[in-house]
Amino acid sequence: MKKIRIGSVGLGRLGLQHAKNIASKISGAELTALCDVDEKKLKETAEALRVSHTFTRFEDMARCSDLDAIVIVSSSAFHPEHIEIALDNGKHVFSEKPLGINIEGCKRAEKAVERHPDKVCMIGFMRRFDPSYLYVKEKIDNGEIGRPILVRCYSQDPEKCIDGAIAFAPDSGGQFLDMAVHDIDLARWFTKSEPVSAWAIGGCYAHPEFAQYRDGDNVGCLLKFQNDTMCFLFAGRTAPHGYNVETEIIGTKGILRVASVPQKNLVEILDNGGVRRECSQNFLERFENAYVRELEEFVSCIVEHKKPSVTVYDGTRTLEIAEGCRNSFQSGELYRF
Amino acid sequence: MKKIRIGSVGLGRLGLQHAKNIASKISGAELTALCDVDEKKLKETAEALRVSHTFTRFEDMARCSDLDAIVIVSSSAFHPEHIEIALDNGKHVFSEKPLGINIEGCKRAEKAVERHPDKVCMIGFMRRFDPSYLYVKEKIDNGEIGRPILVRCYSQDPEKCIDGAIAFAPDSGGQFLDMAVHDIDLARWFTKSEPVSAWAIGGCYAHPEFAQYRDGDNVGCLLKFQNDTMCFLFAGRTAPHGYNVETEIIGTKGILRVASVPQKNLVEILDNGGVRRECSQNFLERFENAYVRELEEFVSCIVEHKKPSVTVYDGTRTLEIAEGCRNSFQSGELYRF
Amino acid sequence: MKKIRIGSVGLGRLGLQHAKNIASKISGAELTALCDVDEKKLKETAEALRVSHTFTRFEDMARCSDLDAIVIVSSSAFHPEHIEIALDNGKHVFSEKPLGINIEGCKRAEKAVERHPDKVCMIGFMRRFDPSYLYVKEKIDNGEIGRPILVRCYSQDPEKCIDGAIAFAPDSGGQFLDMAVHDIDLARWFTKSEPVSAWAIGGCYAHPEFAQYRDGDNVGCLLKFQNDTMCFLFAGRTAPHGYNVETEIIGTKGILRVASVPQKNLVEILDNGGVRRECSQNFLERFENAYVRELEEFVSCIVEHKKPSVTVYDGTRTLEIAEGCRNSFQSGELYRF
Amino acid sequence: MKKIRIGSVGLGRLGLQHAKNIASKISGAELTALCDVDEKKLKETAEALRVSHTFTRFEDMARCSDLDAIVIVSSSAFHPEHIEIALDNGKHVFSEKPLGINIEGCKRAEKAVERHPDKVCMIGFMRRFDPSYLYVKEKIDNGEIGRPILVRCYSQDPEKCIDGAIAFAPDSGGQFLDMAVHDIDLARWFTKSEPVSAWAIGGCYAHPEFAQYRDGDNVGCLLKFQNDTMCFLFAGRTAPHGYNVETEIIGTKGILRVASVPQKNLVEILDNGGVRRECSQNFLERFENAYVRELEEFVSCIVEHKKPSVTVYDGTRTLEIAEGCRNSFQSGELYRF
Repeated sequence: MKKIRIGSVGLGRLGLQHAKNIASKISGAELTALCDVDEKKLKETAEALRVSHTFTRFEDMARCSDLDAIVIVSSSAFHPEHIEIALDNGKHVFSEKPLGINIEGCKRAEKAVERHPDKVCMIGFMRRFDPSYLYVKEKIDNGEIGRPILVRCYSQDPEKCIDGAIAFAPDSGGQFLDMAVHDIDLARWFTKSEPVSAWAIGGCYAHPEFAQYRDGDNVGCLLKFQNDTMCFLFAGRTAPHGYNVETEIIGTKGILRVASVPQKNLVEILDNGGVRRECSQNFLERFENAYVRELEEFVSCIVEHKKPSVTVYDGTRTLEIAEGCRNSFQSGELYRF
Repeated sequence: MKKIRIGSVGLGRLGLQHAKNIASKISGAELTALCDVDEKKLKETAEALRVSHTFTRFEDMARCSDLDAIVIVSSSAFHPEHIEIALDNGKHVFSEKPLGINIEGCKRAEKAVERHPDKVCMIGFMRRFDPSYLYVKEKIDNGEIGRPILVRCYSQDPEKCIDGAIAFAPDSGGQFLDMAVHDIDLARWFTKSEPVSAWAIGGCYAHPEFAQYRDGDNVGCLLKFQNDTMCFLFAGRTAPHGYNVETEIIGTKGILRVASVPQKNLVEILDNGGVRRECSQNFLERFENAYVRELEEFVSCIVEHKKPSVTVYDGTRTLEIAEGCRNSFQSGELYRF
Repeated sequence: MKKIRIGSVGLGRLGLQHAKNIASKISGAELTALCDVDEKKLKETAEALRVSHTFTRFEDMARCSDLDAIVIVSSSAFHPEHIEIALDNGKHVFSEKPLGINIEGCKRAEKAVERHPDKVCMIGFMRRFDPSYLYVKEKIDNGEIGRPILVRCYSQDPEKCIDGAIAFAPDSGGQFLDMAVHDIDLARWFTKSEPVSAWAIGGCYAHPEFAQYRDGDNVGCLLKFQNDTMCFLFAGRTAPHGYNVETEIIGTKGILRVASVPQKNLVEILDNGGVRRECSQNFLERFENAYVRELEEFVSCIVEHKKPSVTVYDGTRTLEIAEGCRNSFQSGELYRF
Repeated sequence: MKKIRIGSVGLGRLGLQHAKNIASKISGAELTALCDVDEKKLKETAEALRVSHTFTRFEDMARCSDLDAIVIVSSSAFHPEHIEIALDNGKHVFSEKPLGINIEGCKRAEKAVERHPDKVCMIGFMRRFDPSYLYVKEKIDNGEIGRPILVRCYSQDPEKCIDGAIAFAPDSGGQFLDMAVHDIDLARWFTKSEPVSAWAIGGCYAHPEFAQYRDGDNVGCLLKFQNDTMCFLFAGRTAPHGYNVETEIIGTKGILRVASVPQKNLVEILDNGGVRRECSQNFLERFENAYVRELEEFVSCIVEHKKPSVTVYDGTRTLEIAEGCRNSFQSGELYRF
């Protein structure tokens, strides 16, 4: 079977992981090209992963006829443009979240997708491919927990990564756009409903640096959905114990919790700290499998001419909701969608 | 040492438990009198607990000169009046929560307390006497978790008790006054701060009967405190697994969770349901020790002429906050305290 | 109702706890007398607990006509003699485990019990009164786990108490007699069967001091019971995390575990150690309730003329088994009962 | 980079999984040939996995010059012969455990390995490649738990698989050879020591069918190691909750537990069973990653001319120990190695 030839743009932390996964873990694909502005990193990575084509300009990679698809892990601001260029050059597209940093960009991406109905364009909400989240989704859809009452979502980065978070703060769009988007996507996916109003609060509890960007180091938001489901989002940057992504869905007949202990493995340690579990320390560790599975899904959509389960419209809608949360946080008022 | 002679009014479920505790578990006290309008139950209980004095009218018990103190477990609406009568008759008072069902009643109770500065008047927020909550309070006060960011409070009654909850609904004052008051008290206790604004939502997800009282079977509220601490309250009546009272305090340096699994004991069961813990099924089971300890504290305050740690003002303030949450729930608008 | 008047001998750590419990927590009893050779401690304790009679000679207390019953918390070697004297003076007896330090002593106690069939003589295997163990016992007896296959018992003291353990080593009788007797009692209670053979090993892994007494700091024993149930005992003195008493019963239809995490309360802590539970640190903390309940049972047996659930014969049998384990440990050979 | 071309023999449940892993998850290898006596299954699998060469006789596959290596997942009795033939035909070998079903076979395999020092011959003790076990091994080797005192190993198959176990019983070699070998390997790996004596008991608690093979449905064994470490093995076929592989290492400074809850994922369910975790149901689910990683190690050994971490001598030694346990179980006597 002919392998799908993929080019990947962006060699940051996640970009590198995607490149490695394509090169060694996605059996239906091969990593054919890499693109990054950092020539040194580009060369080293290409050598390590035995990639034949390298580009420093995205347009050049997009035009390369040896590629079937492009994986976009560039800076968020470039996502819409890269999606458009790739599609217009006949490539299938997988783009990391967020779809863009403003609605205008998202709409541009939507239009490009609509111009190329035969091309796959999938957005990387990887949590949907995590085995535990998939398990929960299935149970909800089977009616095992009855009607959803509350979706509680925590996304917490460890305090030890705070320097990176502060450095990235000017460009992050704030906690709701940067972190809570995954939770917003999950809440929509689990409830099949959309929010109608939101109230967000929070602040700078440990790191005043975020205030200048009208952001907080820890923020919370309560949302009311059309079907009356409540959703409580909490996003923080000061978790003392690790990378804590925890989700709870309270239904009328059952309650499901994912990763209420963000354990890194199956080891329990009994020492002078008591009985304890060590925790995952970052998203790559926690979602190692999910990052592989979403690309397997992407490749499978191309091969089998299927529509991806996460579309450009999910990207747009999620951004709109995150912007509403941010608006409420900054104004102190209720936001109505 | 002379024992404190206590009369207790109200022989409902909790009233009976208080009576038994005074009779057999509070070594510094003796149960001297009982009062209830139900003469049959009164007689039976008095016999079983070997109580010498019985009354069907509260005023008569309040005037009884063989008593030092009165424990009030009557219907909530009567609390302020009973507090006033007891104090005016020279008795120390322990009153179950809530202090009253409206602010007017609370203020009446406050005035009575102020008229009798030499008398102990303690309000029954028993969670403050639970060993786990005490442990958490100490850690917070010691600065072990840094600055509080979020207090998350769940109070869920089991679905199997829903009939009683529906029958009680007309008089309950709604979920915020009836259930969330304990959580409001905890949040004030832990943070030493007061809420400035709140937004409450929720609805009738399984039991439309609550709607006629402008209440829900599950409700949630996000509050902003003066010191910027966020507080998320969730109160529900449809828990599938048991009586779930769970509290989490996220701080900048540590996170504490109380009863994230509401286990009834230390037994773990491995069977075809997987690996599981059975849960506490009601407040008497969960807070068995706390109900004893709060009365020990009450007796100790009388003997040692101490001020109780939970005062009538806590009762008033908690009610004001619960009313604000209810107001937001009913109006759909932000409530500012 | 007239209270049972109790005299208690021995004011060591556990003796003091028993005395306090009788004085303040056992509503059907009163602490009337205390006996100890340490006059200073005797006087102080009597004052603190408002006890009227004090004795430095056990015989004198046993003859005191103001007492109905005697609680024996003296050194293990004295238990049989104290039981005999108390019974012969017409007192009901509650004796701490072990019944004695050799079979001869146990038989002496048995004979005294048989001379006084109208007197209660109960042995203090308090674990049988712990709520979690009672819950497990009921499930086993109800057939909920089918036929018992394996009983696994851990009894571990924390390393931080090692100095006391070393000091006590010459008189302890070794780990099997001193610690594992509780587990042996549990195994017999749960299985209603008796061991037929045993093989014990272990050694001094951290503290060579125990070797001179032909004991180890950690020991293990596998036993085969008449009904084929397997039993694995592990007793250690170097637990890094706390006082770990853990019991598992594997049956053909279900598995029960008691205290697989020896958590001190319901608090979960998330900090740089991960997600953790702090642990109980000693037997008084872990079995606080059980120590009260066993004395309630004792008083209840006296008042209601019932036979106690734990008899002198349980004491003898348990010692015989512990001696068999010790014999195997010291000889390296299989021991057949 | 040229891929290692692998032929695999045996298409049972695990054989199929190995074949799939080689075909799609081991990036440095390709599945070039398959061998099985069942022609239908052989043909179907070869088509599904796009394998070019198929064989019904092992000798033919071993001679095939298009192969670099052979993975042996045939019946245990054939392992030594297949290892010998493969090596003698110049192929690298990965053989599933056990190395053989008797010591004679193991020695034959050892001799073949010694004839071909340039060839890799690795034995499939996959647990050593599980992330949690690797984590534990590292902690032990770093001295984080001090000196090992006790290694406790449970290997339990779910009751629902009992029919297969009974059917396989005549050929299994008994529980110690069939199930406990993995635990024996772990105990040797963790302690770097060897057993000196063992006593095994157990029986048929639910399924008398095993008795005719002088086996039990649940068995236990206590072993003493040269360095005094104790080891308790428990192997059962009637687990009510799932596939339970649990390992605990108690050291003088810390205690490590692997999979004390054999959870299938990170989901916690709160329903009328309480708070529960569903469990893994078989070895393929529990050790999914380990099966991939061991083959990655195998391929890596071939490519980099390294010695595998699990050798034929581990296979022989493990069998000797398992046979000693079985001997003790059948004789009722202590076994000395």
